[in-house]
Amino acid sequence: MVDPVAEELLRLRMSIDNMDAALVHLLAERFKITQQVGELKAAHGLPPAYPLREAQQIERLRALAEEARLDPEFAEKFLNFVVAEVVRHHEAARSQNTSRDSKAYLSHQNGANEKPSRP
Amino acid sequence: MVDPVAEELLRLRMSIDNMDAALVHLLAERFKITQQVGELKAAHGLPPAYPLREAQQIERLRALAEEARLDPEFAEKFLNFVVAEVVRHHEAARSQNTSRDSKAYLSHQNGANEKPSRP
Repeated sequence: MVDPVAEELLRLRMSIDNMDAALVHLLAERFKITQQVGELKAAHGLPPAYPLREAQQIERLRALAEEARLDPEFAEKFLNFVVAEVVRHHEAARSQNTSRDSKAYLSHQNGANEKPSRP
Repeated sequence: MVDPVAEELLRLRMSIDNMDAALVHLLAERFKITQQVGELKAAHGLPPAYPLREAQQIERLRALAEEARLDPEFAEKFLNFVVAEVVRHHEAARSQNTSRDSKAYLSHQNGANEKPSRP
């Protein structure tokens, strides 16, 4: 005999698993784009963080969360969680670039307008 | 004159913003489902955490992350981050139920594995 509670739990868990797969794929794509942002900034000597941009992102996500009935505090925590990982990636990429090619890095820093070389 | 670097940065940021909106909406939907799971478990006196289910979720997400070229460590941290929020919701819902019905609460407490078993 089928337990209706177990059946309902299984149905809900399958939906959670589908969403988690979608979340992981979206996050993978988001990191690909922030990697491009990091490379662009490094190539043009732009600062890694823009407090104004970050404040706008937080405001926007909190508003979207409210519309979607998600706790805006959680949305902000989530963005901070993801951004912390992005910063970690950028720092790792920067220290690799510095050791690989400190001359190119310095010329970028001085304002050289070169195309970013993407791996 | 348009600065091509600023233009490229804007283009990339618009994609990040689109993905963040999608992430927030998916997370909102995921919490709606975990809320149903929490209610179902509470209604039937089931324990709030299943270590085996959680281990399977981690394994699955790590494999999906590798396929998507996302750091599996990050995927695991992400799941833990979301699950911590789910546990917080369930605990809040439970304490609300307690004030309504302390007898039901005590029966959960006696068989419940309160802490998620993951670090």
